[in-house]
Amino acid sequence: MNTESAHSNGLHRVVIVGGGFGGLEVVKGLRGAPVAITLIDRRNHHLFQPLLYQVATASLATSEIAWPIRSLVRDRKDVTTLLATVTGVDAGQRRVMLEDGTAVPYDTLVLATGARHAYFGHDEWEPFALGLKTIEDATTIRRRILVAFEQAERETDHAVQTALLTFVIVGAGPTGVELAGTIAELAQHTLPREFRNIDPSTARVVLIEAGPRVLGGFPETLSEYARTALEKLGVEIELGKPVSDCRADSVTYGDRRLPTRTIIWAAGVRASPAAEWLGAPADGAGRLKVSPDLSVPNHPDIFAIGDTVTIAAPDGKPAPGIAPAAKQEGHYVATVLKARLRGKAAPAPFRYRHQGSLAQIGKRRAVIDFGWTKLRGALAWWLWGLVHIYFLIGARARLSVALSWLWIHTFNQRSARLITQGMPAADALPRDRQAPEPS
Amino acid sequence: MNTESAHSNGLHRVVIVGGGFGGLEVVKGLRGAPVAITLIDRRNHHLFQPLLYQVATASLATSEIAWPIRSLVRDRKDVTTLLATVTGVDAGQRRVMLEDGTAVPYDTLVLATGARHAYFGHDEWEPFALGLKTIEDATTIRRRILVAFEQAERETDHAVQTALLTFVIVGAGPTGVELAGTIAELAQHTLPREFRNIDPSTARVVLIEAGPRVLGGFPETLSEYARTALEKLGVEIELGKPVSDCRADSVTYGDRRLPTRTIIWAAGVRASPAAEWLGAPADGAGRLKVSPDLSVPNHPDIFAIGDTVTIAAPDGKPAPGIAPAAKQEGHYVATVLKARLRGKAAPAPFRYRHQGSLAQIGKRRAVIDFGWTKLRGALAWWLWGLVHIYFLIGARARLSVALSWLWIHTFNQRSARLITQGMPAADALPRDRQAPEPS
Repeated sequence: MNTESAHSNGLHRVVIVGGGFGGLEVVKGLRGAPVAITLIDRRNHHLFQPLLYQVATASLATSEIAWPIRSLVRDRKDVTTLLATVTGVDAGQRRVMLEDGTAVPYDTLVLATGARHAYFGHDEWEPFALGLKTIEDATTIRRRILVAFEQAERETDHAVQTALLTFVIVGAGPTGVELAGTIAELAQHTLPREFRNIDPSTARVVLIEAGPRVLGGFPETLSEYARTALEKLGVEIELGKPVSDCRADSVTYGDRRLPTRTIIWAAGVRASPAAEWLGAPADGAGRLKVSPDLSVPNHPDIFAIGDTVTIAAPDGKPAPGIAPAAKQEGHYVATVLKARLRGKAAPAPFRYRHQGSLAQIGKRRAVIDFGWTKLRGALAWWLWGLVHIYFLIGARARLSVALSWLWIHTFNQRSARLITQGMPAADALPRDRQAPEPS
Repeated sequence: MNTESAHSNGLHRVVIVGGGFGGLEVVKGLRGAPVAITLIDRRNHHLFQPLLYQVATASLATSEIAWPIRSLVRDRKDVTTLLATVTGVDAGQRRVMLEDGTAVPYDTLVLATGARHAYFGHDEWEPFALGLKTIEDATTIRRRILVAFEQAERETDHAVQTALLTFVIVGAGPTGVELAGTIAELAQHTLPREFRNIDPSTARVVLIEAGPRVLGGFPETLSEYARTALEKLGVEIELGKPVSDCRADSVTYGDRRLPTRTIIWAAGVRASPAAEWLGAPADGAGRLKVSPDLSVPNHPDIFAIGDTVTIAAPDGKPAPGIAPAAKQEGHYVATVLKARLRGKAAPAPFRYRHQGSLAQIGKRRAVIDFGWTKLRGALAWWLWGLVHIYFLIGARARLSVALSWLWIHTFNQRSARLITQGMPAADALPRDRQAPEPS
């Protein structure tokens, strides 16, 4: 490690790209260390991804699960926050290149740039199969779901109306399961009294999964419970059926073509291009293969963590792309770096500890797998809620989310049912049609 | 009034265009009347406009001041809500024309379509001088303000940095005053500790007004108080200086050209095209001139209310474009219509009763003019807050807004500081510049 190039008060310069769970944990772990940190993100906010599906389904407001990064680190005078898009890494000269041509020098670089949704080589599906990774993704899905009900209310062609009221979720991991359950509740509990020409509770929610069961990463008993709970909510589950086509008006899976106007993609992700920046080895999903100390092979001064890397859990399977994994990795990198700065030996290789898997299925239904015990039902649901409120940042967000959930579960009223950013595609409806008579 | 054409259960068909304060009040006033109501709005939500500036300044979340229209009227089985854009009125055949070619027949039509901001014939200023009428307007202003601070943090050219930290508000009516005060507080109380290269509290907030004083519609003593209070907050006030040019990098007023990257337009409005739809007489701002019973001359079955009309207050001045005026007009139209349906004589001509004018200036500062008494300072500020919370719709919104305000005023932390919908214009910064060293 070359510390000769460190200047700016002689401090070692750490550049962290990405203010997600991993990046923030590195900042936290470096508190008090003799470093000057630059935290770069192309968004001004840290996003609490585990609850993003609740924004997409009108349960939470955007600002309840997103906080300005520079506000989160305001008390850390050793941290400079930059709102900027990184376009590459000049590893030879130890510089991070920004979109505007600026170069940010580093002594140690941490890449925590996350992942986007991916379509298994079918990028042409993207306009029709909506992914869920950013705040804008969530408000787009929210708009599409709410507009579908609005258009169905005005539609007189029964087939089109049925397609509008068919919501398809591809992928039955935790996000897919949580989306399916929440959309079903929206249709059945929140909207019914508000429409005059359609019955929102007749909406179909179809969850399609290529694998043999829902929540494939969970124990089979919990998968089975989740499947039954979803079916009780009216969700139709199609297992073992890979999707072969997504279009504006339909989805094709197995040997079936289902007319729909809303497809949500919760099936696959692809890492951000960190591996391309470095020309370093990656797996099929673009995830960097890192050394046991989470540094990039042949680049001892570059670390990579979170969804942008692939590492093996102790059981040999890859560590999941979830917040706790990113946080553990971020904490570990801070430890390695502090040891290096003190000239001490490196700590033992990183070892992922799986603390548990959680998924909410609907009102008062959730599954939790702690490994040593499994929970399901109402108790799991309460615990799910408490855990998520606990991990929100700040008392303000905790109070606000608790209030929102209290309201939803008491009155079935969702407070964030806004259609914003663009009018509904009125031209999607056939022209020259008489509006239904008021009745 | 021709009731022969009424069908759909023989009920008189009332079509209301616009779900703002006026339109909703008509719905409310018609409760129990033998009518079938169709409420058409191109947005799915009713917007609490008086607090929209707080979304623009990151104080409130969008969903705290906007509620789905169909949710507000869900218990009224006589009301059908349509999310649709009206393109015209076929007064001969009594039909409202929608964007998708649909026609909605009516027996009585109420136009409550509101107003947009207007640039006194300088529409070319629109891209640079941001208006504030919709949720998207508010999130755009919020993004522009927050991005200006972010860009200033990275800027090394002092002149550009100063322009980025100069915020100009054109128009010193209540909205302009409230925006200026809140932006000043954001810069001075919320942001300072979070930046490393700039001092946000040095940001300039310039309020430009063509007239001789701020809050021109208020008594002079309150105008004077507001001016002093704004100046204490550091707002620079330029009176008697009409704006003569708005550009991407500057505003020109009087004989002065001021470099700035953020201009907010709170100076003028123009009514929606309801007058054009009918080919009916309007004033210079496009506001319909209505009969004493608020019907459109020569169209006894068409009423117009709110910001889309101009009516004289008892003092001869035009009634202001505020929520209470729209609500009084909506209530009156419902009364006229109910009298007609019962074959009774029309009530006395509409008479606007001014209940008071309010404006918040900053933390613990507001002015209120009730006519019979004038209030200013901390008491006025508490009253201002209580009045606004009272008029919010629903206990949920009241609790949520109260919580947000409590937080802001206790901790100076604003919870809705999200930059969404599009990245900052990084290319607005010169290229090939070295980023500031972490310090």
